[in-house]
Amino acid sequence: MSHLYRPKSVCHAGVALFSAAGAAHDKALATAESLVTSSLMGHDSHGIIRIPDYLRFVEDGSIVSNADTTIVRTGPTTAVADCGRGFGPVGAARAVTEAIDLAGEQRTACVITRRCNHVGRLGAWVQMAADQGMIGLATCNSPIYGHFVLPWGGREGRLGTNPIAYAVPTGGAPIVSDFSTSVAPEGKIRFHRNEGKPVPDGWILDSAGQPTNDANEFYGPPKGGILPLGAGAGHKGFALSLLVEILGSALAGISSKDSEVFGNGVCFIVLDPSAFCPLDEFCRLMDDMILYMKSSEPAPGLEEVLVPGELEFRTLQQRQVDGIPIDDKTLIGLREHGRRLNVDIDELLIPKDNS
Amino acid sequence: MSHLYRPKSVCHAGVALFSAAGAAHDKALATAESLVTSSLMGHDSHGIIRIPDYLRFVEDGSIVSNADTTIVRTGPTTAVADCGRGFGPVGAARAVTEAIDLAGEQRTACVITRRCNHVGRLGAWVQMAADQGMIGLATCNSPIYGHFVLPWGGREGRLGTNPIAYAVPTGGAPIVSDFSTSVAPEGKIRFHRNEGKPVPDGWILDSAGQPTNDANEFYGPPKGGILPLGAGAGHKGFALSLLVEILGSALAGISSKDSEVFGNGVCFIVLDPSAFCPLDEFCRLMDDMILYMKSSEPAPGLEEVLVPGELEFRTLQQRQVDGIPIDDKTLIGLREHGRRLNVDIDELLIPKDNS
Repeated sequence: MSHLYRPKSVCHAGVALFSAAGAAHDKALATAESLVTSSLMGHDSHGIIRIPDYLRFVEDGSIVSNADTTIVRTGPTTAVADCGRGFGPVGAARAVTEAIDLAGEQRTACVITRRCNHVGRLGAWVQMAADQGMIGLATCNSPIYGHFVLPWGGREGRLGTNPIAYAVPTGGAPIVSDFSTSVAPEGKIRFHRNEGKPVPDGWILDSAGQPTNDANEFYGPPKGGILPLGAGAGHKGFALSLLVEILGSALAGISSKDSEVFGNGVCFIVLDPSAFCPLDEFCRLMDDMILYMKSSEPAPGLEEVLVPGELEFRTLQQRQVDGIPIDDKTLIGLREHGRRLNVDIDELLIPKDNS
Repeated sequence: MSHLYRPKSVCHAGVALFSAAGAAHDKALATAESLVTSSLMGHDSHGIIRIPDYLRFVEDGSIVSNADTTIVRTGPTTAVADCGRGFGPVGAARAVTEAIDLAGEQRTACVITRRCNHVGRLGAWVQMAADQGMIGLATCNSPIYGHFVLPWGGREGRLGTNPIAYAVPTGGAPIVSDFSTSVAPEGKIRFHRNEGKPVPDGWILDSAGQPTNDANEFYGPPKGGILPLGAGAGHKGFALSLLVEILGSALAGISSKDSEVFGNGVCFIVLDPSAFCPLDEFCRLMDDMILYMKSSEPAPGLEEVLVPGELEFRTLQQRQVDGIPIDDKTLIGLREHGRRLNVDIDELLIPKDNS
C-alpha cells in the first residue's frame, strides 16, 4: 500500500532528516530535492525510498553526511571530483557542474568521480548540462559486490547494471535518456520476487547458465546473473556495459576486482553544441527531429512514439498535482529514522487529501 | 562462391583501381588498406565488396576521388572536418587524427564531419585513437534515405542503423567495439532474403507494424522497418540510435529530414586517459579487467567469453595466413571497373593457392 503526499512536504521531511543526520542545509536540500524529483518523474526506485537507505548509510558510517566534494583539475578540460563519501547527489551535482564549467571554457570536458555514493537518477545530472545548453553524457559503474550482470557468453556476473545517461537541449523540455545496459535493473527482478511473479523471458540465467523465470534462481545461492541488453544481440549490451566499467574503474585508476573500492564510478562528458552550430539553431533542429520521430505511425496497440524523457516530464507534471506515493515500508523507515533523529515525520509529511 | 587471395595483392589491386579513378596515391592507399583490413578482420560487409561500390560512386560523381579534407577548428577542443565528398576512409582518418591531436593538447576533443562518404568499418577509426593511447568514441548516422530503423513504439522508419564504436588501449590488442544500434544491420536482412531464409524473430516488422520473418515484408513496398536494439527493452536501443542521430545531424547543423544532405554524419570524441591515470597503469588495469571478464565460466555450449574486438583480431591473424575471400559477384565488379579504368585485375590479384 502507498499513500500520496504533497511533494514539497516530502522534500521538507527529507531536508529535516538529512540535516539532523549532520548535513549542512545546502547538502540536505540538494539530496532531498534530487530524490523527490526522481519520484516525481516516476523513477520511484531511485527516489524517496532511498531516504531511509541513505540515513542508514550515515548511521553505519559509509556516508559522511557533511562531506565536501573536492575538485582537482587534471588538465585543461578534465577534473576529478573526490566526493569524500558524502551524499551521492551532492557529489554528482558538483562534478557535473565542473564539467559544464570546463565545457563552457573549452567546449568539451570530462570529469570523473572518486569516493562517490549512490547518485540516484543518473539522468538528473546530465539534465543539468542540458539546462545550461550543453550535451551531457554520463556513465556509472558499480564495485565488484554489484557485479550481477553476465558478460556475453558467460554465466558468472562481472559487471554492474551500469547505466548510461544523456541529455540534450531542445526548444522545450530536454531529451533525457537514462537506462541500465543490462536487460533490466536488479530492482525489477527483486520486485518480481517480492510479488511472487515469474521474471520475463530473457532477463536472467540460473547459476548453471540456463534461462529461468524464477527470481530465486538468480539470487541463489548459488547465484545466477542478469543478461546484458540486446537479447540475441547481447554482445552489444555487453560492449556498452564494458565501456561503462572502463570509464568508471580503469580511467579512475581502480581495479574492477578491488573489493575495497568505495562507491560508484561516474564519468561525465560534456559537449558544447555551440562549438558546431548556434544554440538556437541546434534547439530548433532538435525540435524538428523530435517531431519527425513522433510523426511515425504508432505500432499496433500503442498511441504514440515517445522520445526519451517525455514520459518522465509528463509524470512530473501529473505528480506535482496528484502528489507522490510513499509505500508503507518507506513510511515506516522514515518514521524510525525520524524518532532516532528527533524529527517528527508525521508533522512534516502532508497527505495529498489534506492539501 | 568465393576464392581466397593474398591480402597484399588485394590491396595493390584496390590502390591501382582507386588511383586510376583519380585518387592520389596516399588517398588510394588509405582507402584500399581500410577496406582490406575490414575484410581481414571478418567484416566482409564493410570490406572489399565495397571497392566496386566506391568506384561506381566515383563514376556517378557522388565520390570526388581526389578530394582533400579540410579541417576547421571551431574552438580549443573542437573541429569540423569537411571531407569534400572524397573517399569516406580518407575523411574519417583525417577527422579522427585531428581529434587525437586535439586530445593530445587538451585531453578531450570532439570532431564532426560534413560531406563524408561511407567510412567503412567505424571501429577502424577509433582503433587509431587507441593505437595512440587514447580512448576513442564514434557515432555515425545516415541521411533520411537510410532511415530503415523504427523508433520504439512506431512502425515507420525514422533512423539509420546508426552504429556506435569505441576503442580503448590495453597492454595488448585494444578493445574495439563497433555495432549498429538496431537489432541487426540492413545488410544481414538482405543476406537472409538473398539466401531465401527466414529472418530471425524480433528483427523486423511489416508495414502494418506486425512482427514478420519475411525479409520481403521489410523491403516492401509498402516498407516495414528494423527494430531498435533491445527486444522488449527496445526503448534503450532507440535512445542510443537517437543519440547517434543527434550527434550526426543537429550537432552538424543539419535537419534529420533534409533529403539533400550528403553522406554520413560522423562524430568522434577522444579522451586522453593519462589525464586521470598514467597510461601504463591504465593499460595494466585494462589487462586485468579483460582477464576478469574472461574468467567467467562460459554459458552452456560456449567455449569462452570474448571481449569486443577479440574475435576480429583472431580473424585478422587467420586471414593474413589463409587469404581473403572474394565472392564471384565482387570479382566480376572488380574486373568490370578494371577494364573501364585500364587496370588488369587478374594480373594484380594473386590467388592464395599460387602463393
